[in-house]
Amino acid sequence: MDRLRTQALGCIRVNSSTPLDVLDALATTRSIRRYTDAPVELDDLRSILWHAGRAPSGSNRQPFRFLVLRDGPDARRAKSLMGEAFRRGWNTKRAHDGYRPGRFAASMQRYVDRFETIPVVILVCLDRYREPNPMEGASVYPACQNLLLAARAHGYGGALTMWHLGVEDELRELLDIPDHVALSACITLGVPEGNHGPLRRRPLNEIVYDDRWGAPADWVDGPADPSQ
Amino acid sequence: MDRLRTQALGCIRVNSSTPLDVLDALATTRSIRRYTDAPVELDDLRSILWHAGRAPSGSNRQPFRFLVLRDGPDARRAKSLMGEAFRRGWNTKRAHDGYRPGRFAASMQRYVDRFETIPVVILVCLDRYREPNPMEGASVYPACQNLLLAARAHGYGGALTMWHLGVEDELRELLDIPDHVALSACITLGVPEGNHGPLRRRPLNEIVYDDRWGAPADWVDGPADPSQ
Repeated sequence: MDRLRTQALGCIRVNSSTPLDVLDALATTRSIRRYTDAPVELDDLRSILWHAGRAPSGSNRQPFRFLVLRDGPDARRAKSLMGEAFRRGWNTKRAHDGYRPGRFAASMQRYVDRFETIPVVILVCLDRYREPNPMEGASVYPACQNLLLAARAHGYGGALTMWHLGVEDELRELLDIPDHVALSACITLGVPEGNHGPLRRRPLNEIVYDDRWGAPADWVDGPADPSQ
Repeated sequence: MDRLRTQALGCIRVNSSTPLDVLDALATTRSIRRYTDAPVELDDLRSILWHAGRAPSGSNRQPFRFLVLRDGPDARRAKSLMGEAFRRGWNTKRAHDGYRPGRFAASMQRYVDRFETIPVVILVCLDRYREPNPMEGASVYPACQNLLLAARAHGYGGALTMWHLGVEDELRELLDIPDHVALSACITLGVPEGNHGPLRRRPLNEIVYDDRWGAPADWVDGPADPSQ
């Protein structure tokens, strides 16, 4: 089986006791938006969040907080609010960006239509200790990426989204989230359903410069996947 | 050997052909600021950047750019500028936060004193397509975390810092970085020197809430490291 095919299959549930090489995980972890009805086991969720919390943050302040929405009373209300926001968000994006019917559009439509059934939704929050600024994400998004990688290691798939911001005020009121806390990301988690295509990324020479802005790095030429 | 000790030793150079389990990598990758004089091999650097670029970003736009500073003429000037900024940054922080002499302070002093000798410094940039905002980091800091994890897998250590912002204007002019591009992070890379202590992180029940803000998640209780 060639590597691309392996990557495409790499998102199906694996036994978490089977080691997954970190480079393989980085290479193949993609956004997953189609989930089965299977739950996220609490032992797995605990491990996923523990590994998320190992991420670095400015001065190791660890200002990230994980507000987990499962099937409690407030979680159900929050998911319902967010479901509406996600459907509005996708409708707007589809119209604005001109998506044609196809695999991606169908996957997004299914994602937002079934939002309320997603087993676990995590609001990743930043407990701010200074004014909002564009660099503050350095203390919260590394933890989000750790979370997605750990989920992958445990056989789950996830997606990081921003459509929760469409109902930010309502979520703050419902879930009692203080004003100084940023709702930095919404991550959905579940057991992947079906096959998912490989990651699509720019070639390395489009994103790497050497010595100064815009200068090509001739040493990046080579196979698209250097782990081959 | 108990797990903490394993983690403490986990940062020494490993043969990158030896698989490193992704959960172990997430659990043990810490900031490394003491490097030997050994170079970062270009094949490794290419792989590290390739894996960094596999990170997710909003609408998969991949706005992250890696400006690699090695030993070219502009890189040397940029490192010199940044060295001054890092020494000022640490001096200010040490005085302001009241660090006492000790292992951490000594490590930081050595880091800034020897900044110009660090083999590879990467300015991770965000090629903005909209106004700066606190959520934009979702499209650049996951790639930074991938970079640090991939570096670890290849036997290197790194640290994500912000002190480059002390000479942001000078760096823009020297390296020809356009105004619409954010200098989101400065990552230093090298071969770790000596031993490094384990990660220090809050217990999980301080950073996880269930169903609503501030509500304890009773299912997170258990051993500090759920992979044990």
